[in-house]
Amino acid sequence: MTIELIPVEGIGEVRRGEDLATLIADRASLRNGDVVVVTQKVVSKVEGRLVPLDHDDPAARLALVEEESVRVLRRRGELVITETRHGFVCANAGVDLSNVDAGWAALLPEDPDRSARRIRDGLRARTGAEVAVIVSDTFGRPWRQGVTDVAIGCAGVAAVVDLRGTEDDRGRTLQATEVCVADEIASAADLVMGKAARVPVAIVRGVDAGWLRQGSVRAEVVRPPAEDLFR
Amino acid sequence: MTIELIPVEGIGEVRRGEDLATLIADRASLRNGDVVVVTQKVVSKVEGRLVPLDHDDPAARLALVEEESVRVLRRRGELVITETRHGFVCANAGVDLSNVDAGWAALLPEDPDRSARRIRDGLRARTGAEVAVIVSDTFGRPWRQGVTDVAIGCAGVAAVVDLRGTEDDRGRTLQATEVCVADEIASAADLVMGKAARVPVAIVRGVDAGWLRQGSVRAEVVRPPAEDLFR
Repeated sequence: MTIELIPVEGIGEVRRGEDLATLIADRASLRNGDVVVVTQKVVSKVEGRLVPLDHDDPAARLALVEEESVRVLRRRGELVITETRHGFVCANAGVDLSNVDAGWAALLPEDPDRSARRIRDGLRARTGAEVAVIVSDTFGRPWRQGVTDVAIGCAGVAAVVDLRGTEDDRGRTLQATEVCVADEIASAADLVMGKAARVPVAIVRGVDAGWLRQGSVRAEVVRPPAEDLFR
Repeated sequence: MTIELIPVEGIGEVRRGEDLATLIADRASLRNGDVVVVTQKVVSKVEGRLVPLDHDDPAARLALVEEESVRVLRRRGELVITETRHGFVCANAGVDLSNVDAGWAALLPEDPDRSARRIRDGLRARTGAEVAVIVSDTFGRPWRQGVTDVAIGCAGVAAVVDLRGTEDDRGRTLQATEVCVADEIASAADLVMGKAARVPVAIVRGVDAGWLRQGSVRAEVVRPPAEDLFR
């Protein structure tokens, strides 16, 4: 069973209020079971999650980051690692200055699972296809250099697939094999996006049909602080 | 540019001293530019990285984990997060009891970059194809539930691609956009492997040709402890 990663080209710049489902449906031939991965940046833009910010004012930027956070985990120079209201731990609360107009910053969507559901509903209405949607963003990691794309919202696909009940090939029950397929799909999609190439959407075609159920990054992926060893 | 994720079926059980390159070359039609992702488990097995361990003796397991570690970061019950000699931070120093015979544990390869180079050299010799190789393993993450596959070794493909010098679509120089493509490729490959399905190898076909250079997970991905905010 091969999986295909297909970039959706030609979406270009998006504005507040534009309909992402229409933009995608016009440029892609969707099939049942496709997972459509949409980057946070375009989701934030159509949802109007842009706020004025002087890019050359570090204090203003820090104030905005703190406003978007419920907890600061670490600071070093201009880098601040915080926990957002959604429970994501990332640099600068996801406040993003790249690929936005000077004088503006993009915030994370208020509820990225809901954003994914809306796009999914729109795609179903426009194409008739039963697809899943993942909203992705680019996060750093402790201990490992380089960023990777992860899922911040999903709809129609499991975020975490629990293989704990299944047996390994020795017939022994597997332990601790809850796989975050939503993050793996987001990372896979990034391979055909390219950070500077303005391809904000990709299709992941051929994932295990058993993963296609209602899903939620917030409910399945965000680790409760009390269970976390690094907060 | 579409990317394909292709499982390599039929490898089955492997033993110490077996030649992975031959096992792969006999079952896959490799092309120049393919990235061949091989899971740590089969690499450790052919390299003889199995040690006797009573699975029901937690103290013996802990002693083994400590032997494989240079530093313990956190403990909670039977879960120990350590830094391995390679510099990887992961649960139980990568000591793995699943899919190995009772009475044995699989350790990480001594030098996974070297393992990747060896497999790559073997594939070139057997097929004539210029491929890249990534050795992958399954790691947990702080803050996010569910495991994902990451790269622990690579050859013939960059681990981290530096887009910091390039411009975003506003003509502004991108900051902090070093992408760990090796981890993204490892995660993508896992989508066609399945934890319990014994598919230890997958081909990622169609990655950006600019990424295909000598690479090293140890040199590019492992973050020096002094630069790390969570160690």
